[in-house]
Amino acid sequence: MSQPELLSSTKSYGGWIKRYRHQSESVKGEMIFAIYLPPQAETSKVPVLYWLSGLTCNDENFMQKSGAQRLAAKLGLAIVCPDTSPRGSDYPGEHESYDFGSAAGFYLNATQAPYDQTYHMYDYVVSELPQVIESNFPVTDKKSISGHSMGGHGALICALKNPGAYQSVSAFAPISNPTQCPWGKKAFAGYLGHDEKTWEEWDACLLISQAEEKLAILVDQGDADNFLAEQLKPDALELACDVNNHPLMMRHQVGYDHSYFFIASFIDDHLEHHAKALS
Amino acid sequence: MSQPELLSSTKSYGGWIKRYRHQSESVKGEMIFAIYLPPQAETSKVPVLYWLSGLTCNDENFMQKSGAQRLAAKLGLAIVCPDTSPRGSDYPGEHESYDFGSAAGFYLNATQAPYDQTYHMYDYVVSELPQVIESNFPVTDKKSISGHSMGGHGALICALKNPGAYQSVSAFAPISNPTQCPWGKKAFAGYLGHDEKTWEEWDACLLISQAEEKLAILVDQGDADNFLAEQLKPDALELACDVNNHPLMMRHQVGYDHSYFFIASFIDDHLEHHAKALS
Repeated sequence: MSQPELLSSTKSYGGWIKRYRHQSESVKGEMIFAIYLPPQAETSKVPVLYWLSGLTCNDENFMQKSGAQRLAAKLGLAIVCPDTSPRGSDYPGEHESYDFGSAAGFYLNATQAPYDQTYHMYDYVVSELPQVIESNFPVTDKKSISGHSMGGHGALICALKNPGAYQSVSAFAPISNPTQCPWGKKAFAGYLGHDEKTWEEWDACLLISQAEEKLAILVDQGDADNFLAEQLKPDALELACDVNNHPLMMRHQVGYDHSYFFIASFIDDHLEHHAKALS
Repeated sequence: MSQPELLSSTKSYGGWIKRYRHQSESVKGEMIFAIYLPPQAETSKVPVLYWLSGLTCNDENFMQKSGAQRLAAKLGLAIVCPDTSPRGSDYPGEHESYDFGSAAGFYLNATQAPYDQTYHMYDYVVSELPQVIESNFPVTDKKSISGHSMGGHGALICALKNPGAYQSVSAFAPISNPTQCPWGKKAFAGYLGHDEKTWEEWDACLLISQAEEKLAILVDQGDADNFLAEQLKPDALELACDVNNHPLMMRHQVGYDHSYFFIASFIDDHLEHHAKALS
């Protein structure tokens, strides 16, 4: 495992936002991630919240716009933000659309050429990145996961597919049922091929029925979100949880859209949710 | 006075961030501003904090990165963010450098052609914009002012030149003594000409000695700020306030840089400072 190379270090609420570049085995190239280390990390090990960002984002959006550092500094919580796709390749069409390829890795392991060479964001987020974090920073091995939109989908599938790995899970406006929405269908066809059977293991609504662990899911969803009915489908997640008796706290937030202003408005509740589980 | 045209409306911490475009008489063209209306504004009038942004910014940076809406929603404080220069002209070189012309209006009234035609950001911020805000939104006529870097300079000069107009003033890493630093000299020469006598009325350190009102100034300054010694000169502000017995709360924040992460870390203290004066 190569040593992460420090790119920048910025003080925030008494702690530090640090950006690193490292050589990733999963995606066979360089990856950048950001970590927020709260003040407590100077004297003891702290638990980690992994944050998965949405389409078009990278490691920086959450750190710049969520305001999460304020409460994380009080709770003694590290936050790790990976990038949203590999960046080192240049496949035909990879950089042409906002919802496929660059910045749209969908947190799965691609099986279709040429993406199967490098688009292994699931392995990266679930296995490799936690190893890098736990080997190089003053953190415990306790972790939770959250994310937004495509990253909300990512957080849900990572938790559902890995019972016991995460202490808690939450999501903002997740793509809940990607096998049934345009964003998901485009991504899954491109990364996994046209046999829709292979899509099922990457869809939170379908994974709920097989979940070995009934980890409670906290979801915030704005009711003025432009992508609500066509792409996000919170109703499908509610139905799947209801049918399978899976604990879900689905909060429909009146008047809120899909932006980071929505995330910032409710991030404190998510941090409290995770800190409680991680303590 | 033309009616501001609503560009967008985004819910944030129970209130609303609204962006407007309007025809400005001061700058003889269209200007965009943002206003945060806290939840209290739905039932009563609220006081206003004007925030002046720094070089390269527009009305959006503070709203996206400061996290100020969280506490403003609790305190019942509206926040107004103007743009940092006129945008409608296309003078030779106007858009070529980050520290002069577009996004670098320096909150003064230019006297040198061609900038004297439109670069009247001082009149805009001090007179026109408050009229627009007070005529169109549920706000009281009580106002305070703050800002960052070039906008910190703007906040200081607006308050010092207008005794009684603002209930309180604060700044993050202000350009305290622009007649003596490269950013200020370049801007003042371009907007005001080479007679340095004309620069004096736009320099906070020089205005302190003439201040009719001893309004306490709150300043946060990071000691890891790259621009500290060459451009910002907090020592000059401390000396001017000391010599003239002007109340100054200068806080040197260890390890903080010039970024919005620094602003976010201490914005709550500034909001409390202003809310107390405005109540």
